[in-house]
Amino acid sequence: MVETQRTGDTGQSASESSSATKPGWPEQAASMVWDAWGIPAGHKPLSAQIRGLLAQVFGVSGDPVTRRDEVDVPLRESALTPDRRDGLGAVVGADNVSVDHHDRLLRAGGKSTPDLLRRRAEGPQDAPDAIVYPADHDQVLAVLTYCAANAIAVVPFGGGTSVVGGVDPIGGRFDTVIALDLRRLDTLSKVDPISGTAALGAGLTGPAAEKLLAAHGLSLGHFPQSFEFASIGGFAATRSSGQASAGYGRFDDMVQHLKIATPSGTIELGRAPASAAGPDLRELFVGSEGALGVITEVTLRVHPVPETIGYQAWSFPDFETGAAALRSVVQAGAAPTVLRLSDEVETGVNLARTADIGGNPVAGCLAITTFEGTAAHVAARSAEAGALLAAAGGNALGQTPAQEWEHGRFAAPYMRDALLDVGVLCETLETATTWSNLAALKSKVTAALTDSLAGQGTPPLVMCHISHTYPTGASLYFTIIAKQLDDPIAQWHAAKQAVGDAIMTAGGTITHHHAVGTDHRPWIPAEIGDLGVRILRAVKQQLDPAGILNPGKLVP
Amino acid sequence: MVETQRTGDTGQSASESSSATKPGWPEQAASMVWDAWGIPAGHKPLSAQIRGLLAQVFGVSGDPVTRRDEVDVPLRESALTPDRRDGLGAVVGADNVSVDHHDRLLRAGGKSTPDLLRRRAEGPQDAPDAIVYPADHDQVLAVLTYCAANAIAVVPFGGGTSVVGGVDPIGGRFDTVIALDLRRLDTLSKVDPISGTAALGAGLTGPAAEKLLAAHGLSLGHFPQSFEFASIGGFAATRSSGQASAGYGRFDDMVQHLKIATPSGTIELGRAPASAAGPDLRELFVGSEGALGVITEVTLRVHPVPETIGYQAWSFPDFETGAAALRSVVQAGAAPTVLRLSDEVETGVNLARTADIGGNPVAGCLAITTFEGTAAHVAARSAEAGALLAAAGGNALGQTPAQEWEHGRFAAPYMRDALLDVGVLCETLETATTWSNLAALKSKVTAALTDSLAGQGTPPLVMCHISHTYPTGASLYFTIIAKQLDDPIAQWHAAKQAVGDAIMTAGGTITHHHAVGTDHRPWIPAEIGDLGVRILRAVKQQLDPAGILNPGKLVP
Repeated sequence: MVETQRTGDTGQSASESSSATKPGWPEQAASMVWDAWGIPAGHKPLSAQIRGLLAQVFGVSGDPVTRRDEVDVPLRESALTPDRRDGLGAVVGADNVSVDHHDRLLRAGGKSTPDLLRRRAEGPQDAPDAIVYPADHDQVLAVLTYCAANAIAVVPFGGGTSVVGGVDPIGGRFDTVIALDLRRLDTLSKVDPISGTAALGAGLTGPAAEKLLAAHGLSLGHFPQSFEFASIGGFAATRSSGQASAGYGRFDDMVQHLKIATPSGTIELGRAPASAAGPDLRELFVGSEGALGVITEVTLRVHPVPETIGYQAWSFPDFETGAAALRSVVQAGAAPTVLRLSDEVETGVNLARTADIGGNPVAGCLAITTFEGTAAHVAARSAEAGALLAAAGGNALGQTPAQEWEHGRFAAPYMRDALLDVGVLCETLETATTWSNLAALKSKVTAALTDSLAGQGTPPLVMCHISHTYPTGASLYFTIIAKQLDDPIAQWHAAKQAVGDAIMTAGGTITHHHAVGTDHRPWIPAEIGDLGVRILRAVKQQLDPAGILNPGKLVP
Repeated sequence: MVETQRTGDTGQSASESSSATKPGWPEQAASMVWDAWGIPAGHKPLSAQIRGLLAQVFGVSGDPVTRRDEVDVPLRESALTPDRRDGLGAVVGADNVSVDHHDRLLRAGGKSTPDLLRRRAEGPQDAPDAIVYPADHDQVLAVLTYCAANAIAVVPFGGGTSVVGGVDPIGGRFDTVIALDLRRLDTLSKVDPISGTAALGAGLTGPAAEKLLAAHGLSLGHFPQSFEFASIGGFAATRSSGQASAGYGRFDDMVQHLKIATPSGTIELGRAPASAAGPDLRELFVGSEGALGVITEVTLRVHPVPETIGYQAWSFPDFETGAAALRSVVQAGAAPTVLRLSDEVETGVNLARTADIGGNPVAGCLAITTFEGTAAHVAARSAEAGALLAAAGGNALGQTPAQEWEHGRFAAPYMRDALLDVGVLCETLETATTWSNLAALKSKVTAALTDSLAGQGTPPLVMCHISHTYPTGASLYFTIIAKQLDDPIAQWHAAKQAVGDAIMTAGGTITHHHAVGTDHRPWIPAEIGDLGVRILRAVKQQLDPAGILNPGKLVP
């Protein structure tokens, strides 16, 4: 059952990645562009219909701004000294240490709206002092040992899709910070089709992992919006959750075994599908955001490529009715593979189908269900779930809206760039709570956002959907659109501060699947308590006594 | 949605517990007897049929030994000084500190076979120096603060059902050790029927919790073999897994929120059904075995008392065919509520139906399935699972064997006592691994047990079943019967050492649901690595700097 397969030639130059394409999956890009989401081919100008809508609602009608060519962007000089460059080169090979302008700019940070606004602002950019590309676990370990001994901060870097500042090039008390780019850890080192497990390198992107698995008739089924660019290691490090979480679980549910490099050595965790041998230490590293160690390999639960996929869309008269319907399905143990519900505003704007914004909106609230598995399973499950949704007030809309949603599901971040370019602020945030608290939390989050932005003279449009459901509760994902002020970063910062406080007061979690990074760190003491923070610090002190790992993230 | 309900009068004397009975659940006992499993009413002599079998197989035909009356059992004198007794009394009330012979003897330890053999041996017994009965979380916290300041070791005590030495009265470097009996933490403090959650006191036994929930039409559905006596706090602290885990999950899956008292203060964890706000620290305390803190309240996922329960038993020609059939059901996402498979030996002995041992065995391997939920869910799920089991070679046996299994499912530990009394060694152990490694692990465990015991001149009967299944693997639960040697503790110790090493070499986990305690602690470095041990120690140092919490357990 053991095989080692890679997505590309391992001898490739360090700043290029493999390009894995598979019919049905989007093409994997080399890297995302430096100042926006995704690859150039994905960028589309706003339609006349959307621009009309923006002019009407926000009074925004300008032409898109012209972005800077990256060669014109001033970058602070690399602080990497020649001796340190040689030292790192001795570990990974001189060709795998880069201080190139282009390479540094591509790892300048993540893709939150403030990130993108900072990239587009005038003036010099911050960036890591160098990019280091280790080939395997042992090289990661050796790099960490070197950096701990030589006072170099390390930011582990996967797909760079963080929207919470998780890959910001923060050196903390160190004068040099490197991005540790894991793209060369790109192997499927073991596949066990009987048990349904596969060991995947941390640097594999979503499409690359799916392509390697597909050769064995297997699939991971983890499809967050960042799927096309984010990496296996990043999914684990951030407690990611994909759009098919109702069927295949959150990424943390999929994790069977972790291999982690820390400045204090290697740790491997997860001997069995389940164990009572003390605390589950895997759960310390899932969500550790590179602050406790660098995840180099993840053994994951996988499943056969589904025989059949069933699609069914529904409408509900209002969000409360729709949420109760979703709840009835999940609590009955009849969850589909995908189970989503857009609120009235999102349904009206038709954001659930980005390809068709503004056109032919569904009345009330749109819900999407898909069912994957054997033909018998899909038939049984869709009949059971369908009966419950209908009984709870759902109106079946057929399969087309669900297929359209699936077709456009990775496109929304591209639209954000087009909006930012014409002077519209667009950002998202998410939380989760129990079913009984869901309506109250939604209302308080919406009020906090509206109050803050309207108070600044820019009343927002706030849309919401449920995309992850559990027997005891659900997530809430908000998309916020408003007219930009002259300082849109400060504008959003004020709104984010207000909404973060509102989430904590209203009993939500500060993040359901976007992780902590720099942006949510102020709320971590409220999330886990002072003693929880002390536990994290004690573990970090044990694993990373020099404090080189991802300074400024996660641990307050 | 908030209510506070107790199982009994909180003003009761400390050494009596509430007696909760509910039609359908076994009666909850005050406490188990000191030298055997359970309550006197549960103890049954061996049938003539079984004694005939034992004579034939092991040449054992003696009459049961007479056990000592507890008043005749010498106990070492309590080391609790009068000032410490006053100090503890000032926290919980003088009536809630006991140095009574009976009370101490009942907390002398758990219920492993070596425990029971030690209880029945001549000579003085070890026991905690005192029993302390706090009333609530704040008193637990105050007791821990007092004990940390006054050099008293604390063994948290729930139902006392540990089979791994988890409640042994070990003082470590302290000359005084108390049992912290949590039975007064017996409230259902909050129930949320919309979200399907309930906050239960750590001291509630399984039946007491189910009785409180039943008043709201709810059920927890956690039915380990220790269900009648074990406590909510114990289930959490040991990562328990119940017989309905295929349907309702392991206990750790059910945990939504934990309230924990530590010498360093209180920590509350779990703000939402799921979160990406860093590491999931709940998973540090689930399985912490009282060594990191004392769990005082657990908010759990509950579900409506099922409308319908469907039963269906199956036979398979052999274990391998049966295991593959179970795997096909779980991997298809069609798992029943209960899903078990006995191997050929266990099926032959008919241990799966303790009421009928030796009689009318099923040919091949017996499998049990039950399905709970709404009528529609039971119908849909049993049709899907049944079709898969039949397609995989199963022969449907109807519902009777499944109902018989359910009826007798808590009785096996009583039979162990009857066997021990006539000179037969009887013990159990369990592990888990991936589906692809299951047959190899089963074979190696069986070989290690057989080699060790046969090498000592007492060839064993080794029976096995699968009782917990996952998409990626399953548990293996072994029951071992052999003739006792003159020193049966040493006899078993040798076998346990051999089989523990075999499990680790063969890629299993040292325990799937019995926890670590003293007995599995030697294998923890192999289970989580040296760095994993350092993490546990660092967390313990932070939460319990004096080291008073459950010395000698879990943390190597």
